Amino acid sequence: DPNLKIFTLNSNPKLAREIANVVGVELGKCSVSQFSDGEIQINIEESIRGCDVYVIQSTSDPVNEHMMELLIMVDALKRASARTINLVIPYYGYARQDRKARAREPITAKLVANLLETAGATRVITLDLHAPQIQGFFDIPIDHLMGVPIIAKYFEDKGFQAEDIVVVSPDHGGVTRARKLAERLKTPIAIIDKRRPRPNVAEVMNIVGNVDGKICIIIDDIIDTAGTITLAAKALIESGAKEVYASCTHPVLSGPAIERINNSPIKELVATNSINIPEERKSEKLVELSVAPLLGEAIIRVHEDQSVSPLFDI
Amino acid sequence: DPNLKIFTLNSNPKLAREIANVVGVELGKCSVSQFSDGEIQINIEESIRGCDVYVIQSTSDPVNEHMMELLIMVDALKRASARTINLVIPYYGYARQDRKARAREPITAKLVANLLETAGATRVITLDLHAPQIQGFFDIPIDHLMGVPIIAKYFEDKGFQAEDIVVVSPDHGGVTRARKLAERLKTPIAIIDKRRPRPNVAEVMNIVGNVDGKICIIIDDIIDTAGTITLAAKALIESGAKEVYASCTHPVLSGPAIERINNSPIKELVATNSINIPEERKSEKLVELSVAPLLGEAIIRVHEDQSVSPLFDI
Ligand SMILES: Nc1ncnc2c1ncn2[C@@H]1O[C@H](COP(=O)(O)O)[C@@H](O)[C@H]1O
Ligand SMILES: Nc1ncnc2c1ncn2[C@@H]1O[C@H](COP(=O)(O)O)[C@@H](O)[C@H]1O
Repeated sequence: DPNLKIFTLNSNPKLAREIANVVGVELGKCSVSQFSDGEIQINIEESIRGCDVYVIQSTSDPVNEHMMELLIMVDALKRASARTINLVIPYYGYARQDRKARAREPITAKLVANLLETAGATRVITLDLHAPQIQGFFDIPIDHLMGVPIIAKYFEDKGFQAEDIVVVSPDHGGVTRARKLAERLKTPIAIIDKRRPRPNVAEVMNIVGNVDGKICIIIDDIIDTAGTITLAAKALIESGAKEVYASCTHPVLSGPAIERINNSPIKELVATNSINIPEERKSEKLVELSVAPLLGEAIIRVHEDQSVSPLFDI
Repeated sequence: DPNLKIFTLNSNPKLAREIANVVGVELGKCSVSQFSDGEIQINIEESIRGCDVYVIQSTSDPVNEHMMELLIMVDALKRASARTINLVIPYYGYARQDRKARAREPITAKLVANLLETAGATRVITLDLHAPQIQGFFDIPIDHLMGVPIIAKYFEDKGFQAEDIVVVSPDHGGVTRARKLAERLKTPIAIIDKRRPRPNVAEVMNIVGNVDGKICIIIDDIIDTAGTITLAAKALIESGAKEVYASCTHPVLSGPAIERINNSPIKELVATNSINIPEERKSEKLVELSVAPLLGEAIIRVHEDQSVSPLFDI
């Protein structure tokens, strides 16, 4: 369909090319650069009048650059008479600022939703929002996909015996996600129960569930500084776990993350390519799973007005 | 008035302190930092419920950081029940992207206006917009102040004889501004008439007006890479000018600017502190004029529901 156009910005050009391959189109011609003073300069180099445009951009680090690129691109597309402007945001940044945890905090996840709509976005396709409630921050349709099936497939292909595995949630908030993975792998779950005995005393990791002699697969949505996950891995090994795998949809991996993972008992860090990790920051333990088939299929289905629900079970 | 609060973000804390001094209040307590992954974290550390809040922030380089800081701050203030949210934006970034000069360009100056309003701004106070039409991009009140009186005052104090000076506009677009400065200094003007004889041939600088034996004061709104202004200075000297001063409201000074100015016949670069220039990037030729008295007075007048027009003649 010549009316379907896919553009990439600067966060994830490699993933965007893979997605365009899945959809069977060429990436749209567009240059996204900076003026001498750091202001973003966008030139869309082909007509998109009357087209359904899909823009691939994660709002990952540098998040404010990537956010402004996305907003300015939407503005340019709107003024160039795109019919629909569909944002494919594999990693939705600022998702953790989704409520006022303390007085006078911003709710940046909601602000970002408002900004994208103001710029002119007509639909969002995204992956594992930190809180599913963020869907409700938008007044435009949002397709919320999940990384769990991709992660499940990877571990299925390893050929482990189901009775040898236990899926571990690193906290109580992640139990639903862990349960989904456990259902796919037909295994039980365990939960890490962090408790701080007294203020200013180190947290204690209690493990709820049996991990003795098991292959543990920890699953989280985001791994950021990797503090929790590496402490959890240590606690699991101390409780008799045979091996520990860590998995997540979004490998933010900021600050000390890589070093912590390299020095931890974690055997593999299994993550999707929702966030592009530059070569020099890749850990040897990192296994990257592509979300291109998932997002490409989502684009095809959205463009053909079909439900995306079947994608929850690929 | 305890209901008047001034906060600063990270673009211009020194100017903000000066402004707070002029107004006679302490800066509001607030921390603006980054999480490990580069996301902006804002904590407003005092109640602002029912207050009239003034936020000082230039959207200067790094423009996208400064823009997101401002948007997130406005979101936090709105949710913390500020009565009014007044943005003092000494330098309004992205102002040069104010129209579609070519097909499929964004109009980022308008996008930014929309984003600020969406976040919750109720008023903008700014200085020398690249195009005065940008005032119309806002649906909230905007006070548009001018740097010319401050620059005029500086040159008046030098005690030059009026008949020795000529004010020079570096292009046809800047003639109105040059004329304002010339009126204050009671001098004639000259205009640099750039022409490109044929495509891909260097521009020729024709000077319209008499500069022979004169002290030339070039005035522009923004000096960015300083290409135009240094070529103009050279052309003026070649046409017999005795001395050349360059002046502007907004010293963007990106890329080769400092080097070009240092190597040029420009005697002084006179600019306001609308943009904070780090010590290590300051040229010896730079003379900084503070806009704190102007912006402080504007805040007082706005807060007391008085006209800001008298500030055009300070
Ligand atoms: N980029 C970030 N990095 C670390 N913590 C964050 C970030 N953004 C928000 N937060 C904090 O993380 C908390 C939300 O985490 P959670 O309880 O996992 O939903 C909030 O209280 C935020 O203050
Ligand atoms: N940050 C920037 N640096 C240099 N040029 C810019 C910038 N933003 C916009 N422009 C270009 O400058 C032109 C506007 O300049 P002017 O004719 O002086 O209003 C537009 O055609 C823009 O493409």
